[in-house]
Formats: sequence, structure tokens, C-alpha cells
Amino acid sequence: MKNHHKRISKKLGMRPGSVVYVGKETQEPVEISTIDYSEKELKTEAGLDIAKAAQFKDSSTMSWINVNGIHDSALVEQLGTAYGIHPLVLEDIVNTGQRPTFDDSKEYVFVTLKMLLGFDEDANIKSEQVSVLFGKRWVMTFQETGEDVFDSVRQRLIKTEPRIRFMSSDYLAYTIIDAIVDHYFLVLEEIGAQIELIDDSVSVDPAPGDLNSIRKLKKQLIFMRKAVWPLREVISGLDRIENKLITDMVSPYLRDLYEHIVQVIDTIETYRDLVSGLLDLYHTGISNRMNEIMKVLTIFASIFIPLGFLAGVYGMNFDTSISPFNLPELSLKYGYILFWCLAAAIGGGLFIFFKRKRWL
Amino acid sequence: MKNHHKRISKKLGMRPGSVVYVGKETQEPVEISTIDYSEKELKTEAGLDIAKAAQFKDSSTMSWINVNGIHDSALVEQLGTAYGIHPLVLEDIVNTGQRPTFDDSKEYVFVTLKMLLGFDEDANIKSEQVSVLFGKRWVMTFQETGEDVFDSVRQRLIKTEPRIRFMSSDYLAYTIIDAIVDHYFLVLEEIGAQIELIDDSVSVDPAPGDLNSIRKLKKQLIFMRKAVWPLREVISGLDRIENKLITDMVSPYLRDLYEHIVQVIDTIETYRDLVSGLLDLYHTGISNRMNEIMKVLTIFASIFIPLGFLAGVYGMNFDTSISPFNLPELSLKYGYILFWCLAAAIGGGLFIFFKRKRWL
Amino acid sequence: MKNHHKRISKKLGMRPGSVVYVGKETQEPVEISTIDYSEKELKTEAGLDIAKAAQFKDSSTMSWINVNGIHDSALVEQLGTAYGIHPLVLEDIVNTGQRPTFDDSKEYVFVTLKMLLGFDEDANIKSEQVSVLFGKRWVMTFQETGEDVFDSVRQRLIKTEPRIRFMSSDYLAYTIIDAIVDHYFLVLEEIGAQIELIDDSVSVDPAPGDLNSIRKLKKQLIFMRKAVWPLREVISGLDRIENKLITDMVSPYLRDLYEHIVQVIDTIETYRDLVSGLLDLYHTGISNRMNEIMKVLTIFASIFIPLGFLAGVYGMNFDTSISPFNLPELSLKYGYILFWCLAAAIGGGLFIFFKRKRWL
Amino acid sequence: MKNHHKRISKKLGMRPGSVVYVGKETQEPVEISTIDYSEKELKTEAGLDIAKAAQFKDSSTMSWINVNGIHDSALVEQLGTAYGIHPLVLEDIVNTGQRPTFDDSKEYVFVTLKMLLGFDEDANIKSEQVSVLFGKRWVMTFQETGEDVFDSVRQRLIKTEPRIRFMSSDYLAYTIIDAIVDHYFLVLEEIGAQIELIDDSVSVDPAPGDLNSIRKLKKQLIFMRKAVWPLREVISGLDRIENKLITDMVSPYLRDLYEHIVQVIDTIETYRDLVSGLLDLYHTGISNRMNEIMKVLTIFASIFIPLGFLAGVYGMNFDTSISPFNLPELSLKYGYILFWCLAAAIGGGLFIFFKRKRWL
Amino acid sequence: MKNHHKRISKKLGMRPGSVVYVGKETQEPVEISTIDYSEKELKTEAGLDIAKAAQFKDSSTMSWINVNGIHDSALVEQLGTAYGIHPLVLEDIVNTGQRPTFDDSKEYVFVTLKMLLGFDEDANIKSEQVSVLFGKRWVMTFQETGEDVFDSVRQRLIKTEPRIRFMSSDYLAYTIIDAIVDHYFLVLEEIGAQIELIDDSVSVDPAPGDLNSIRKLKKQLIFMRKAVWPLREVISGLDRIENKLITDMVSPYLRDLYEHIVQVIDTIETYRDLVSGLLDLYHTGISNRMNEIMKVLTIFASIFIPLGFLAGVYGMNFDTSISPFNLPELSLKYGYILFWCLAAAIGGGLFIFFKRKRWL
Repeated sequence: MKNHHKRISKKLGMRPGSVVYVGKETQEPVEISTIDYSEKELKTEAGLDIAKAAQFKDSSTMSWINVNGIHDSALVEQLGTAYGIHPLVLEDIVNTGQRPTFDDSKEYVFVTLKMLLGFDEDANIKSEQVSVLFGKRWVMTFQETGEDVFDSVRQRLIKTEPRIRFMSSDYLAYTIIDAIVDHYFLVLEEIGAQIELIDDSVSVDPAPGDLNSIRKLKKQLIFMRKAVWPLREVISGLDRIENKLITDMVSPYLRDLYEHIVQVIDTIETYRDLVSGLLDLYHTGISNRMNEIMKVLTIFASIFIPLGFLAGVYGMNFDTSISPFNLPELSLKYGYILFWCLAAAIGGGLFIFFKRKRWL
Repeated sequence: MKNHHKRISKKLGMRPGSVVYVGKETQEPVEISTIDYSEKELKTEAGLDIAKAAQFKDSSTMSWINVNGIHDSALVEQLGTAYGIHPLVLEDIVNTGQRPTFDDSKEYVFVTLKMLLGFDEDANIKSEQVSVLFGKRWVMTFQETGEDVFDSVRQRLIKTEPRIRFMSSDYLAYTIIDAIVDHYFLVLEEIGAQIELIDDSVSVDPAPGDLNSIRKLKKQLIFMRKAVWPLREVISGLDRIENKLITDMVSPYLRDLYEHIVQVIDTIETYRDLVSGLLDLYHTGISNRMNEIMKVLTIFASIFIPLGFLAGVYGMNFDTSISPFNLPELSLKYGYILFWCLAAAIGGGLFIFFKRKRWL
Repeated sequence: MKNHHKRISKKLGMRPGSVVYVGKETQEPVEISTIDYSEKELKTEAGLDIAKAAQFKDSSTMSWINVNGIHDSALVEQLGTAYGIHPLVLEDIVNTGQRPTFDDSKEYVFVTLKMLLGFDEDANIKSEQVSVLFGKRWVMTFQETGEDVFDSVRQRLIKTEPRIRFMSSDYLAYTIIDAIVDHYFLVLEEIGAQIELIDDSVSVDPAPGDLNSIRKLKKQLIFMRKAVWPLREVISGLDRIENKLITDMVSPYLRDLYEHIVQVIDTIETYRDLVSGLLDLYHTGISNRMNEIMKVLTIFASIFIPLGFLAGVYGMNFDTSISPFNLPELSLKYGYILFWCLAAAIGGGLFIFFKRKRWL
Repeated sequence: MKNHHKRISKKLGMRPGSVVYVGKETQEPVEISTIDYSEKELKTEAGLDIAKAAQFKDSSTMSWINVNGIHDSALVEQLGTAYGIHPLVLEDIVNTGQRPTFDDSKEYVFVTLKMLLGFDEDANIKSEQVSVLFGKRWVMTFQETGEDVFDSVRQRLIKTEPRIRFMSSDYLAYTIIDAIVDHYFLVLEEIGAQIELIDDSVSVDPAPGDLNSIRKLKKQLIFMRKAVWPLREVISGLDRIENKLITDMVSPYLRDLYEHIVQVIDTIETYRDLVSGLLDLYHTGISNRMNEIMKVLTIFASIFIPLGFLAGVYGMNFDTSISPFNLPELSLKYGYILFWCLAAAIGGGLFIFFKRKRWL
Repeated sequence: MKNHHKRISKKLGMRPGSVVYVGKETQEPVEISTIDYSEKELKTEAGLDIAKAAQFKDSSTMSWINVNGIHDSALVEQLGTAYGIHPLVLEDIVNTGQRPTFDDSKEYVFVTLKMLLGFDEDANIKSEQVSVLFGKRWVMTFQETGEDVFDSVRQRLIKTEPRIRFMSSDYLAYTIIDAIVDHYFLVLEEIGAQIELIDDSVSVDPAPGDLNSIRKLKKQLIFMRKAVWPLREVISGLDRIENKLITDMVSPYLRDLYEHIVQVIDTIETYRDLVSGLLDLYHTGISNRMNEIMKVLTIFASIFIPLGFLAGVYGMNFDTSISPFNLPELSLKYGYILFWCLAAAIGGGLFIFFKRKRWL
């Protein structure tokens, strides 16, 4: 969060449509790679330059151009210009703080969303801005680093799975977005497992560490919610717009994708309910412990303070020689034994009293 | 929850429309059974294979094919293909984490929803994914296990109840869904009874076990809400879509069903209010107890600490022989009796003070 | 609530449209009575049988048939069939757990809603399911018991008030519903009075009984809300539907009724806000009392524990004969007086300290 | 609130459209006054009777008839009938519990809303029901008492301000409503000032009185919200309806008025947020004080209880003459001094311990 | 807030459309300046009078007239009249409490919004009312003081950046509003940084100052929300209205701006969630500390009160010479050593007891 906003200041004062990267600074080299295929053959290339990447636009084969590293704004701008992308769209591609959104023109459809890669060592969700564009015979994806969730898509392309190779670019784009959304479930699974773990711990005995874990869960869910919620509108929007690039065939898949996203959102909301229940449970545990501490204190104090008073009484120095009314107990033969009996009676009485109140 | 999500990972990377079971693993054998009937006669068969089950599609009689055990994805896929079901629908049938939804084509209408079977020994709601499909002269139901709530429907079919036998497949499908929704009321009844039970317990004296029960109620209601809420849209959607398979005759029944679902949702929301009231009550009970503990402590300490001081004073060893100003009380004839009078006066005064404050 | 749901189980497994009473069991006899009137004369009859009651359907006079006691499902079914009522509507009439709803056909319009009769001895709202049906020249009302709020309507009919006698059946039905809604205000008045009472009590000194009262208020408001909220849609729905039985003349009255219901809902929401404010106030009162208890404890303990220590010191048995350094204070002529001065100084100092902290 | 509802019961059982006053009972005489003006001259009259007031309906000059005191239902009914007002509208005029609403007919437009006059001595908002009706060449206002916020409007009429005199009746009605809405801002200002005042007090040191003030603020805001919220729909409704009495010229003024009302609502919501923040702050202050009390108690008890034990030890009467192991400290030359050193060491150690914990 | 509302009272009773400044009083002189440019040349002027400023309305060059200081209502009114602005719009321009809104006529489009300038020394957001109007070949901006965020726009104009100079007035107006919205991100960045700072502090050890900081954050977010939320509707409204002054070319920019505003709102909501999490954390920290204080108190009291009683017992003066049953321990050779052993055993036992309860 900090990183993101620190960077946004860099852009202040520039004209709208300025292609300026605002994400984490990185030295990782940018890499352009392609998978170029027809129904019969498939060719993969990596380490392309812009000129080469631009050639795929009008080739008769289907091409998937993937760009790792959007921090090289200049490269993104040149490549985008070669494919006829509007500057405002290019601005969105490199703006890692961008909300999921979509745009379309006669030449291409543009979708940007968050790819969740898992958790880092601080239990924060690792996420990346991914932009997917597709035109008549090409799909282009932009991502922040080389780490992604597209291996399954690549495998299916390489294994000559019939459906995907025969289909139009919108289906490939859908497949890529679907792979990203599938990973949302993985991340939710992990969060669900954490919720159960903490639930078990907090139910038994809340430890301060649990509070921290609960807060992390809460932040993860706030983060996911922010990433997924707008995606719902994006997908239903894609299904509604009139654009020849989105074929009728892909429409049931988009609706299916929409259902998945709604399910992710549903689960996030359910988890939020559960996590807020955990917080309640934690506080209840804390206040139960407080209660127990108070009970122990009260029992000790209530039993021994009166006994202490009694002992104090027989430690008084009233002159017994002056009159028989002064501390006559002290001169009794079994005085000390009677004292202990009295102490035991008081202590026992209070013990029973507390027992009745179910404090013991 | 844990089980569900653990399984979803199995599906990652597969193409959309992959028919993969994601529910609890089970060894229970899959069983296909049918009730085949016309207005005049009715025939039940069990233990069918796919080929036989497929024959009912075009038979002139009305057929209800029920599949117990959707964990055999291959079987579901083959049967589905035989009846011309779209792969994405088959995927939804075996995906036990599926949200209630519906779909339709010229050949069939598809509805999936949650069947609530009651509570397991841990007070979790036992639920099953049920999918209902119907075509011109057939209804197919898929469920996870052999346990279901359809006995009443079967009875009505067998008993030759006129209405149900004469009617089209949409009415049978409605009857099945209605039976499921009726069981929602049963589960709510049970939850309502639990709420009253806990209410009684918490009102009198909140025990730690109550908190657990309240949390279970809360989770049950969160679970039910997630299961029932989307069903509302499903049923109103069924009533709105233009599909020849849904006849005008069934429309008032669908609206009636819709009303029932709204009533279930209403009751769930009311119960959520009541349960959150219970939680408040529990916390109030806890803090009242704390108050009481504090009062006992304060009374004992406030009465006996001053008395202890007094006893301490007369235990001091000031040299009475040096001057008459040193502890002259010790040499009084009734000194000890006066001491007790003083102690009683202090104790009594404080007692009245606390009485006035209504702490006693 | 308990009663309601216990009964619903009775209906499980029956076909939709089964007319089964699900309310409280009762032995009260069912009574059918009518008020039959034209502009000129009015005739009341009680204790009718179904055959007689059925005759009013096609009479040329206006008739109001009232049925007390819907627990006799068979009677309701027969009467309903005689008037051509749809089975699903009859099911709603005897289902006392029914949400307010309406339905219409060419022959009749049906409205069901809750009649609030006041409070029982446990401060629960006494309510009854009332169903109002009207056709061309008849109005039929079904209620659970003989107790109702329709006396004012009957008076107006009997007193030959011009408007009501000359008007069509929809106006009479409106008048009946209006009488029910007017009683909502009465119940709200009572709740409002209770809120003020409890407010006064809690502001001064929260007692445990107050919590109970607050919870009862909360439940009453939850109950009322559930009863009134759907009625808004019912009335606006009645005003919107195209049905010849609802004349233009009655439309401003329906809108007026709608406004009244919105006002009831508004007031309920305001009361919910106020009641949740009362709960806060109660808790604040409890924690203030806790604070006060702690203050008393702290003051006593903080003053007398140090003094006790001081007394303890001069009760020590160091051998004063060995050296002048051992407890020389004991041998001072004014030692004891100095001790009291010291004690007074310590106590007074702490007193001032607590005074400054505004604990006294 | 109490007053209002007590009165509503009076109306129970009456036919709809009964013109019955339900507000506070009052002996104040009713007064009808008019301002009758054309572009050139203006005439004010007070103390009119109904017959005279009725003449203004068809006069060629513009007339503003103002009625103070709607508790005289008969008068309102007669005047209303003279101007052709529908009975349901007359009922709304005298029903002081009426929600803001509007109605229109070919002859007149009717708006009822709440006029806020400021605060009474108990810090409750003083409000009055105001009804504004206007026809072709007349505007009629009904209010509960003689106190109002219309002086500015009267001044502008009298001062021959061109715009207002030349304009049609809808503009005058708008001007009157605008004057009422302007006073909402005044009341909000006062509430805003109170919020700041209490904020300052609570931030420093929460006093019990603050809680009361916060609750009053809360009630004021609940009250205002209930009064203003429906007005938004009223004004946007007025702007939308097709009625020749509402001219195009007044439309931007209505939109401006609408904006003002939205701003009032916005501010109310913001204030509610702030007030609930104040409540949090109050509770935090209370629990901080509790913490401080506990700290003082703990420090005193923790330091002096161990010291008291030490003093007790040297007050024991073990027989030192029997063996040198019994309380040898008592016979040391510097025993007493060593005792004080030990006591100082213990006290000092604990002092440092508490200092480190930052309790001091 | 205080200032704003104090001023509104000044306007009470004036006719609608009265141009009255209601913001902070100031002596700063009003300054009118212009940037007048064509594609080829650009001229800046400052210190203009109204007559001169009015000339730019019909000039063939594009002109940006900026007015610093709207407290001179007369000047605003004259300038506005010269440009044909509706009085209600002029009223909005000088009303610093105005909600973001827009209006349009054939001659001009009007937008008013809040410009956030950063934070003042009390951590309140410094904001200014900015109004942007544009006609065919002119843009006019009104602001409260000379401080603004438009330097970047001016730089781009001066540096002859092609796009901005060639474009129509709506694009310049968009650019100005975009510069304001860009600064919202800057303010959010700062708030985000503060949230992290306080998060770190509160996680470790909540200090009273943190509460204050949290409240300030909360107020800042409430303030921003109120400023930004209505802007969303304003921009989407601008994009929807049919007005020749808003060209098709600017439409994607408006949509982009809309997205930015939605993102600001999203971030504000996320921050509100985080801040309310901070408050929870603060309270948890406070109650944890309370717990710890209670533990220390309980440990000290529970260990030393019983030991004190023991010491008291052996300080009793039972007459050992009378019988061997009276305090025989006092006469043991190792009595004192046994006493210490007993004390150590009791203390140690309790120590282990507390250790087991994990209080140590």
C-alpha cells in the first residue's frame, strides 16, 4: 500500500494518458515472449524486441504475446502504439494501482485485473496487475514480473487440446482470465484453512498472537474484496457490450466466469463474517480470563483479609492483667486451638459461599 | 468448508467445462434409479446402467431418473452427454461448492440448489448439492448420497395422486424443489428451538458452553443464508424466462415457492438479529458477573482492611510505662470491649453504606 | 415462534396447495357470521353453516362474511371452494406463519396480513393472521380467534354512515385493512411509552430488569418489522395491478394507506435506533457502576493498607533494650500521638490526592 | 413523541378522511391572516373568519392565507372545503404526526413538511407541522402555532422586491418552503456547535453529563433525519409531476432546493458519524479512567502488602530466648534500621518495576 | 465546520439566488488573472478588472480566467452577469459549503467541487471550494485563495504541449478537474502513510495519543468522503448530458476521470475499514494492559495476604505459659526457620499455580 501510493506522486502534474509506471521499483529485465499457433502447429519464442513483437499483429496465425515487467513504460508505450492502443489504456496497463476495469474499441478489447500469486512471508497476499488485450488474431498480456498462473493455459495450448487451438482470440483471453480467477479459489482455500486454525486456537485459549493473525486475515479479505468486487462488473460488462471481437460462442463461458466471481465474492463475505466472529471470540476469551483473574483475587482476598484481622485482634496488647474483660481468650487453655477452629470455620464458610456462586 | 476447498485445488488448470467432482471423497457406490409412469401405471427400477438410463429420454412415459453419488464424474459425464447436457452444466452438477443457479436450453432446464438434511453430531448442517434437470418427458436429479428428502414426492407418485401424475415434467421438478425448500423450514424450526433454549440458559446464567452454542447458531445461519439467498433469484428467474418447458400452469406454483423462499430468508434474518441479541446478552451476563465479583471483593476488603488497621494499632508496642499518652486504651478496664464496639460500628457503618449503594 | 415452527413440520411432505392449519392448537369453535347490507337496510347473522355462507356469493346485496377460527381447515377449504378460491390461496389462509402477501384473479382479490391485538402478560405482541378476500359484491375475512379490531368498521356500517354503505366491496376491504393498520399505531404508542419509561429508569440507575425490558422491546420491534415491512409492497402492489375489482375511487385511499404503513415502518426504525441507544446506555450505566465500585475499593485499600503497614511497624518486637537504634519511637513520650498524626497525614494526603483526581 | 402517540388513539375507529387534530392540546386561539397583493399594492389583514378567508380563492390578486393553530379541526375542515381540498388532504393537515408528503389535483398542490423552530429548554428540537397549499392565485399555509420562520418572506413581499411580487403562486410556495429548509441549516449549525463543544469536553475528561449530551444529540439527529429524509422525495416529486400549477420557471429553484435538502441529509449523516465517534471516545475515556484507578490500586497494594508482611514477621512472638535461630534479627543492634532499608529496597524495586511498565 | 455554519446564518431570509459569501472571512485581495492562448501564442495577465475580464468572453482565442478569492460576492456577481451566468449558479460559486454539483445551459457548463490542498498544522485537510465554468472559447475558475494545484496545467499550457493548446474548452476544464482529482491521491497517500504509522505504534503499545490520531484519521476520511462521493455522480452526469459544449473527444477522458474517482472512493472505504480496525486494536491493547495490571495485583495480593495472615498468627499473644496448646510453635527451637519454610512453600506453591495459569 505504502509503495503504491508513494509512486503515484511521481505522476502528479502529467497530462492524462501519460504512460508512467507507478509500481514497485525493480531491476528485473523486461521480457517479451510469444506463443504463435495455428490449428496444426505451435511456435514459442522468447526475448523478442518490439519490432518483432509488432509483426504478430497482422499475421494469419493466432498469437499470444506476453510481456513480463511493465516497469519499462517506454517499451509498453511503443508496443502499445504498434498495436494501436489508446494512450489512456496504456496508462492503465502500467498503473499498478488500477482498479479492475475494461475498455473496447473496434480494434481490440482490454481487460485489466489482479492476479493473486499466493502469500509472502508476512502473510500478505502477493498480487500482480495483469492486463489482457485481444484483437482479431492476437492476445497480449502484460504482467509485473515473470511469476504467473498461466502454466495450465500454456500446457493446454502445447498439448494440442482441440478446443483451445481452434477457437478465436476471445476464447484464449477468457481462458487466461479464467486461470487467474481459479487462483482466487486457491487463495481463499488458504485463508479458509487459516480461519479454522485460528478458530481452534482462540476457542481453547486466546493468545495475543491470535489477534495479529485475525488482523492479517481481515486485511487479506479487505484486499481481496477490493480486487475481486469490481471484476464482477467487468465480466458482466464484457458479456453485454456489442463488439464483434466477442463471439457468441464465448458468451456461456463468460457467464460461467461471472458465476465463479460471484462465488468468490460470496465466500469473501462469509469469511468476513467468520473473521469478525473470531474477533468477538477473542475478546470474549480475554474478558473471560479477566473474570477468572478477578475470581482468584477475590477468593484470596476475601478469605485471608478477615482471617488477618482475626490474627491481628489476638496480637493486640490490651492489658489482660487490669481486668478480665481484656482479651480473655488469650488466657484460655485451648485459646489457640479455638482460634484455628474459628479461622477454619470462616474460611470454610466463605469457601462454601464461593462454591455456591460457582466461582470455584 | 475445509473439505470443499481442499478439493477445489484438484481442478486448477483444467479447461472450463471439465467434469471433476470436488466434494468429500467417498467409496459409496453410485446408484441410478428411475420412476417411470404414465397416468395409469408406474414402474420403479434401481441399479440401472447408463445405457438403460439413457433410454428414458425419448420414451413416451414420464420418467424421473435419480442419480445418487455424483463423485463418479465419468458416469455423470456420460449420462449427461446422452441427454445432451452442456459440459458447463455437467461441471456445475459435480461441483459441490456450486452456488444455487439455473440454466436453460431448448432441450432442458437446469436448476442446482442445496438440500439440507438436518444436523450432524457437531451441530453442523448436513447439506447436499442437488441438481434438477428436466426435459420434455423426463426429470433427472443428481445428489451426493442416497440420503434425501424426496420420500414424500415418491409417495405421492405411487399413491396415484391425480394431480402429480397427470402433469408435465416442470410440475414434477417443481414438486422436488418444493420438497427441498419445505425442509429448510424444518431446519429453521430446529434452529429456532435452539435459540429459545440458549435464550433461557443465557438469561438466567451465562455459561461458557452457551458461547459455543451461539457461535454454532451463527455459523448455521451464515451457512443457510449462503445456501438460500441465491435461490430466490433462481426461482424468480425460472418464472421469468421464456422456455416452452415451463408451462403457464406451473407459474403460480413457482410464485408460491418464491414466497416460501422469501419467508425462509426473512426468518434467517430475524434469527440473525435474535442470535446477535443473544451474544449481547451473554456479554452482559459476563460483565454482570464481573460486577458481582468486584462487589464481593470490595465489600470484604473495604470492611476488613480498616478493621485490620485498628487491630494493628492496638498491637503496637509503644511503651505505656513511659507516659500516659502512649496507647492509654490498652490499660482501660473495658478497652477490649470498646475495641469490638468500635469494630462493629465501623463494619456496620460500611454495611449501611453499601446497602444504600444497593451493593448488598 | 416456537409454536409456529413446531406446527410447520405437520405439513411436510404434503402436496402444494394442501390446506393445513399450522398455528396454535385450539378448541375454540369456529364461527361464521355475516353482515349483509344494501344502501337501505342491514342484516347481521351469526352461527351460519357453509351452505348458508355460500349463498351470499351471488346475492345482490353487499355481504361481509367473517370466519373466526381458521384451525378448521376442512371448513375453510369447503367455503373457499364454494367461492372459487385457488387452493394455494386457501393454503395461505390457514398458514399462520404466512408473510403478508396478496394475489388476485378475475373473481376475487386476496390480501393476507397480521392483525396486532396488543400485548399479552409476557409483553409479547398478540397477533393474528387475517386474510381479506373480496369479490364483486362480497368481502370475506378469516381470522384465528374471535378477538379482532373491526368493531369500528361494524359500527360505521350499522350507523348507516353514508359513504361506506354506498361503496363497492374494495372500499369495505380497504376499510378493514385500514382498521388493522390503525391498530399498528396503537401498538407503537405502547412501545413508545415503554421506551420512555425504560429510558427514565436506565438514565438514573440501570437495573437488571431493564435489560430484560430492553430485550423485549427489541423482540417486539423485530416482530412488528417482520409483520409490517412486506405490507408496504402488498398495498403498493394492490394499487398497481389492473383488476376491475379495484375501482379508481379507492386508489387515493390505498395511497393514503401506503403512506400510513411507511410511517409505521419509519417509526419502527426510529424506535430500533432508540432501543439500541438504550442498550448502550444500560451498558454504560453498568460500566459506570463498576467504575464506582473500583473507586471505593481503591480508596479504602490505598488509604488503609499503608496505615496498616505503619501499625505493623510499631508492632514489631525489635529489642529496644539492645540499642537506641531499635524502634526508638516506641519510647517517646508522645510516640502514640505522633503515630496518629502521621496516620492522619498519610490518610489526609491520599484523600486530597483522590479528591484532585475527582474520585470523591 | 409521547404526546403525539397519545393523541393518535383518539382517531382510532374513525373513517379515513376524518379531520381530527392529533397534536399537543392547546388553548391558543386560531388566527387566520392574509397578505393580499398585486404587483402594485399589498394589503395585510389578520383575524379573518372563514367566510372572508374563502373570498380570496377567486380574487384576481395573489393571496397568501396563513392559518395559525390547526387544533381547531372544524375550522380547517370548513376552510378546506371552501377551497375544494380533498378530505384525505385535510386529514393530513391536522395530523401533526404526518410524514412529509405531497399531493396534487387540478385545483391545487399540497405539500406538508416539518418546520424546525430551534431548541426548547430540554435541548429537544422544537418542530411544527406546516402544510403549504397553492392554487392558481392563492397560497395557503397551515401551522400549529403563531411562531414561524416566514418573516423573511413577509419582508420581501412588503419591501416590494420585484421578483417575488411578479411571480406566480408556485414561486411563493417555493419561497415559503425554502425559508423552512434554510432554517434546517440553522438547527444543524447549532448541533454542529454542540458536537464541537462536547468533543472538546470528552477529549479532555469525559463527565457523566457528556453522555447525556451525546444522547440528546443523537436523538436530535434521529428526529431531524426522520423529518428531512422524506422531503427529498417530495421535492423531486414536485419537480417531476405534470401539473399546470407548477410552472417551468420554478423548476431550477426546485432543483436548487433539492440540492439543499441533499446537503442537509449529507450533513446529518456526517454528524451521526461524528456523534457515534463521540460515544466511542466517551467509552474510551471511561475505560481509561478505570485503567488509571486500577493502576493506583495495584501500585498501593503491591508495594504495601509485602511491606506489611515484613512488618508482621518482625511482630511475631517466637521465643528468642530458646534458641538463636528464632528471629535473630530482633536482637541486632541495627535491626530496625536494616528493616527500613529492606522496606525501602522492596518499595523502590517495585517502584522501578512499575516505572518500567510505564504505570507511573 | 464551525466556521462554515456560523456563516450560513448570514444568508437566512435572503431570496434564493442571493450571491452571498459564506466561507471564512478574509482580507486577502481578490485577483483576476487570465491565460489567453491560441495554437501559436500565449499571453498571461494578472490584476484585471471586471470590464477587462469580460472581454475574453467573445474573443477568438481560448481564455482561462481565474478568480482568486470568492469572498468578494459583488465582484463574482458582476463577472458572472457579464458572462450570462444564472444567479443560482453564482450563489453556488460563493457558497463554500456547497456540495459538488454541476449545471449546464446552452451558454456554459458549470462544475463545482472541492480542491484538497494538503493538511494544516492540526492535521485537518485544507480544502477549497473550486468552481469551473466553461463556454465556447473560455474557461473560468473561481477559488477561495491564491493557493491551488493548477501549476501543472499552467506549465503544460506554457510549454506549448500540443494536445492541450489545440483542444476545445471542455478539454481544458477536464484537465483542471483532473489536476484536482490527482491531488486527492496525494492526500490519500498521506493518510495511508499515517495509518501505517499508527498501526505500527498501536500494535506494539497503544498510547493515548494514538486514539487522538485515529480520530483525526477518521475525521479526515469522513471529510474526504463527503467531498468525493457526490463528485462521482457529477462526472458521470457530465458524460451523459447532451450539451454541445462537451465534445465526443473528451468523453473517454471523462470516463477515465470517473474511474479515478471510483478508485479514490474505493480507497477511502478501504481506509475506513482499516481505521476502524485500528480502533479495535487500540481498545484491545487497552484491555490487554488492564489484564496485565490485574494479574500483577492478583499475584501480589494472593501471595502476600496469606503470608501476612501467617505472620499475624505468630504475632498473637495467646498465653503460652497457661497451656502447651497455646502457640506451641513459638517455643520450638527452629520455629522461625520453619515459619520461613512454610512461607516459602506457600509462596512457591502459588507461584507455580500462577505459572500454570500462564499469568507469569
